[in-house]
Amino acid sequence: MPSTALSNHQIRLAARPVGTPTRDNWSFTSEPVADPDSGGVLVKTLYLSLDPAMRGWMNDAKSYIPPVGIGEVMRAGGIGVVVASKNPAYAVGDHVSAGLGVQEYCLIAQSELARSGIFKVDAKVGTLTQWLNVLGMPGMTGYFGLSDIGQPKAGETVVVSGAAGAVGQTVGQLAKIRGCRAVGIAGGPAKCDWVVRELGFDACIDYKSGSVRDGLKEHCPKGVDIYFDNVGGEILDHVLAKINRKARIIICGAISQYNNTAPVQGPKNYLSLLVNRARMEGMVVFDYADRYPVAIVEMAAYLKDGRMKSKEDVVAGLDTFPEALLKLFSGENFGKLVLQVAN
Amino acid sequence: MPSTALSNHQIRLAARPVGTPTRDNWSFTSEPVADPDSGGVLVKTLYLSLDPAMRGWMNDAKSYIPPVGIGEVMRAGGIGVVVASKNPAYAVGDHVSAGLGVQEYCLIAQSELARSGIFKVDAKVGTLTQWLNVLGMPGMTGYFGLSDIGQPKAGETVVVSGAAGAVGQTVGQLAKIRGCRAVGIAGGPAKCDWVVRELGFDACIDYKSGSVRDGLKEHCPKGVDIYFDNVGGEILDHVLAKINRKARIIICGAISQYNNTAPVQGPKNYLSLLVNRARMEGMVVFDYADRYPVAIVEMAAYLKDGRMKSKEDVVAGLDTFPEALLKLFSGENFGKLVLQVAN
Repeated sequence: MPSTALSNHQIRLAARPVGTPTRDNWSFTSEPVADPDSGGVLVKTLYLSLDPAMRGWMNDAKSYIPPVGIGEVMRAGGIGVVVASKNPAYAVGDHVSAGLGVQEYCLIAQSELARSGIFKVDAKVGTLTQWLNVLGMPGMTGYFGLSDIGQPKAGETVVVSGAAGAVGQTVGQLAKIRGCRAVGIAGGPAKCDWVVRELGFDACIDYKSGSVRDGLKEHCPKGVDIYFDNVGGEILDHVLAKINRKARIIICGAISQYNNTAPVQGPKNYLSLLVNRARMEGMVVFDYADRYPVAIVEMAAYLKDGRMKSKEDVVAGLDTFPEALLKLFSGENFGKLVLQVAN
Repeated sequence: MPSTALSNHQIRLAARPVGTPTRDNWSFTSEPVADPDSGGVLVKTLYLSLDPAMRGWMNDAKSYIPPVGIGEVMRAGGIGVVVASKNPAYAVGDHVSAGLGVQEYCLIAQSELARSGIFKVDAKVGTLTQWLNVLGMPGMTGYFGLSDIGQPKAGETVVVSGAAGAVGQTVGQLAKIRGCRAVGIAGGPAKCDWVVRELGFDACIDYKSGSVRDGLKEHCPKGVDIYFDNVGGEILDHVLAKINRKARIIICGAISQYNNTAPVQGPKNYLSLLVNRARMEGMVVFDYADRYPVAIVEMAAYLKDGRMKSKEDVVAGLDTFPEALLKLFSGENFGKLVLQVAN
């Protein structure tokens, strides 16, 4: 049992950002760690997942989940270790994945266990950071978005933006496993090289150094059958201009638009959907939660046999959270961005 | 057999329009009527279908069918009567539907019969103008777009723009037959009243006299499950803001954008697709040609039992074609726009 003398450092949403979040949008608080009541568990945070979706949760807008309230601990998924338990399903020392929040300790009451999404993770199946990457929410997003909405067929061309990011690396590698041509879009030669050499994509277009339009023309000689969109903006329009008949576009995110203070840029080439009898469909990974276990088994097998690789970009220190988060929007992160909170 | 002294007046594309087409985009020619060769038929045009899609065919752009070439007779579907035949399947006096073009006579060689889409129409099943409306291409567009892409379920709310137009009237009436709530969007009180009183829509929003946003709020208290979009532009954005989870948006056209000289306005609310796990899908009616006969039987039954009504706006005279076409874009037509070429 932890002593109540232990202090829990937390990062809370202090004010809603306009445009890019700054340090002023956060407050840094500290409170004593409480013991769990009957049925509850106390989890010590080890790693937190930093995701583009967090930016959306900071806005006071109707979305697929309620916004984080002002004064609340910032929402975040993470991996931790159970340090106190009054629930027979969780033993001290168990590693778990759960909605821990941006804080050092997370006390989860019995009534909150389901909502926290807590489950035990097996460090023999994947490393703790892989459980936030290909075995975690980004991996599940790529898996179900590509499989269920994309419905890839061998020989088709799959394009994915944010290719070096957490979701993108899963999508491209899974596309290859499914027998497709995988073409990434990423920023900078280092990411593009890595996506091709390490992950085995057929090509990767550097949107920072050349024309995406020309890149698509060169690397998608048979057009685009599936586009997995993480970025929105102009890149979505360039891909719309290259889609094939009956193409499927998965709208997973629009990172280029999240810090906009101007209205979102709509895809002006959307009538390509009409010409090509194509489909654009949105997805939210939580809808597939009951099928995560099946997908995790499949992904773990690919990790083991080497067909799936996983790269995490680990930043250390809870207090670096405000700046670390911004790496996602500047494109500075290389691989799945993870905040290490404790060893 | 017609005498070759008969003259065939034709309207040809003379120049590609920039923005709204003018009379200068057309040339008016005349040539002798030729007799059909073996297997061919000569059809006298009675009625031509004027459709928003025609504007797209005038552009030199890749689309679902090739553009009309400069100097070619303008493409148009129509209803005519066979006046000479060297094909045992068609007798003089038969009424047929076919791609006749904007001309008084259409000579269809045997090798061109399939491509012309020719089929005999039964004037006892529907009037000749109904064969260009609910029993014709617009009816088929509404039928397959709503049924196949929309997949309506009883109790759902279906919104359709261009509600008083050819496709719109079919969509709303079919939605009612399928047990849905049908809400139209149209321009002006006369059209809106007619859509509600005559066609039986639950409501119709007048986009010319009020806020579409407020209208949707009032008339779609349970949100929007299906949106059949004929217009694009701001109305699409307003509906995107009101869609329900798993909504289906059928992209059939974007008449508000066809005469634009500026780039098409993309739907800036497209991320509502993500939040609502919704789908936006394009359709082209020609893909369903092999299923037209089944749909026509169903639609004819609805016409007969009074559940489906059909309104055509008939303009007379081949030479009025350039001005008549523009009624579609100003919203002046009331019902399916038809050009009467002969009695």
